Amino acid sequence: MGKSMLDVVVDCDGFPYYNDDPEHYKAHMQGFHTFRVQGCDAVLGYMLNEIAERFSSFTNKLASDDFAKDYWYIDSTARTITLATAVDTGPEDRSRVVAYTLAKMKEEGVFDVLRGWRDELYPVYGRGGKLLLEIERSACPLFGVVSYGIHMTGYVKDKNGLRIWVPKRSEKKQTFPGMYDNTVGGGMSTKEYPFECALREAEEEASLSRKVMEAKTTPVSCLSYIYVRDKKAGGETGLIQPEVEYIYDIELDADTIPKPNDSEVQEFHLLTVDQVRTALWEGKFKANCGIVVVDFLIRHGILTGENEPGYVDMLTRMHRRLEFPTASHVVS
Amino acid sequence: MGKSMLDVVVDCDGFPYYNDDPEHYKAHMQGFHTFRVQGCDAVLGYMLNEIAERFSSFTNKLASDDFAKDYWYIDSTARTITLATAVDTGPEDRSRVVAYTLAKMKEEGVFDVLRGWRDELYPVYGRGGKLLLEIERSACPLFGVVSYGIHMTGYVKDKNGLRIWVPKRSEKKQTFPGMYDNTVGGGMSTKEYPFECALREAEEEASLSRKVMEAKTTPVSCLSYIYVRDKKAGGETGLIQPEVEYIYDIELDADTIPKPNDSEVQEFHLLTVDQVRTALWEGKFKANCGIVVVDFLIRHGILTGENEPGYVDMLTRMHRRLEFPTASHVVS
Repeated sequence: MGKSMLDVVVDCDGFPYYNDDPEHYKAHMQGFHTFRVQGCDAVLGYMLNEIAERFSSFTNKLASDDFAKDYWYIDSTARTITLATAVDTGPEDRSRVVAYTLAKMKEEGVFDVLRGWRDELYPVYGRGGKLLLEIERSACPLFGVVSYGIHMTGYVKDKNGLRIWVPKRSEKKQTFPGMYDNTVGGGMSTKEYPFECALREAEEEASLSRKVMEAKTTPVSCLSYIYVRDKKAGGETGLIQPEVEYIYDIELDADTIPKPNDSEVQEFHLLTVDQVRTALWEGKFKANCGIVVVDFLIRHGILTGENEPGYVDMLTRMHRRLEFPTASHVVS
Repeated sequence: MGKSMLDVVVDCDGFPYYNDDPEHYKAHMQGFHTFRVQGCDAVLGYMLNEIAERFSSFTNKLASDDFAKDYWYIDSTARTITLATAVDTGPEDRSRVVAYTLAKMKEEGVFDVLRGWRDELYPVYGRGGKLLLEIERSACPLFGVVSYGIHMTGYVKDKNGLRIWVPKRSEKKQTFPGMYDNTVGGGMSTKEYPFECALREAEEEASLSRKVMEAKTTPVSCLSYIYVRDKKAGGETGLIQPEVEYIYDIELDADTIPKPNDSEVQEFHLLTVDQVRTALWEGKFKANCGIVVVDFLIRHGILTGENEPGYVDMLTRMHRRLEFPTASHVVS
């Protein structure tokens, strides 16, 4: 036996907590700049100092008539990086400055994570769930802003007991190649609702039809955590990635077999609970997928306070209260 | 419509969070002494300053040869109250000092909450889940130490949809009289395991047999929060009560009818989901029971991120990371 279930959770939620040790927390925070947008008083993300320094020396070198020149204000004493667009600027104009800057940075190879450019925009929200701007997906960990996604566990419950559909990621994926994933999972782009995202990803990743999804899916929870990127995530390490993941369960008949419909997944396995536990112990799951499996095993009565050390600790870390504004996804 | 579901959760978890507003949090903490035990470096609870002052003036007035005289060290500058028994004292001897002191305080009417004396001992744990001492149940909120309990929701799922067994507390209960409760709920005493406690309470409060319990109960989660006591809780207000509650679901046949077996519960109602929601809006549930119902409605797909504002916020508050050591209840 390798990792405990609590280790699996800490692999996904590795950022320190103030109340665990205030002095350590304060010292740790010295390593980050806070990301802000002019006109919003909330902190939107944490950027590693060394990233902020590289960011700053890049923007300092921009020509004086460069479009982005005056929009970035980096204060290395207060440790802030501010998108200094006018207070009344709208999301589109803010996003334009960010997109322009990041495209230049990608071109000049300033940051490794930008090699994984996705051409997908992720939203950043201010207080009250107000959309402030959009950022290229691969750049979100540079700013340490919250991203949103959905994860769904497909399972079969029959005479063979409870089994879970676990896909193996393609060895060619740029992030977490060859690792175990959740049955369906993916990031929510701006204006997308959780179930809409689940429908899209279920079709793409597992060939699960809208009909099956609408009949059998249950929204069951929401996990939140701050992931600290390591080597397996690709690019610079130590970047932080706060995430909010809407969680779904789908009970499938044994004859509904998920099939990969894109290149992300290599193959699906229908694993017993014991096999899933072993895979968790062996660290085979992608970090934020392991936590979803742990939550599933808790909700289904398999991991309990009487059989799993660190049970309370696991539950609190999987539902971390983020210090950044988060979106509302209520359908109006 | 009165309360939002988030209001219901905040009624149960009303203590501020550092990261929501560090300055406000620090100012708020000025109102508390930290409770410590000599030989353990962890903070075990928060005691309101005014409680600490009353505590201090009581112990100061003890005769110089009084048994408890030298065991309490209250520092109003550092704002600490320390049980100053020798470092190598065992739980029994620490508990003896506490019991003796509290019995005298009860006798002299020092604290209102002690009028609700229960003659039940609750455990206080140090680092690594080590038992440090036991405290009379009604006195726990004075010290602000973590208490442990179980809550179980009994439900029926049939052609009439999902319905929940909701008991109404007796009008004669000293705390939260006449309010709605969970199907089964109760506090765990020292050395009791969660399911053992659930069995005992299910028999006492709902006449559910061990056989039914063992066949149909699923452990599904654990909630944690810091409750700030208000008038309905009885006694002094503003005392804090951090709690860890192990959560169970039990699906019952429509013909298994819970019956009160003690004087705590007046009667059981089988409420539809809409009736339960209305009761939550109307603030009819006891604070920490409302949160259990909200968690149930989330896990069963009724409250979702798409229909309930504050969904993410609710989930993080219901799984609050406590800054005090907590027990492990793993059965060895």
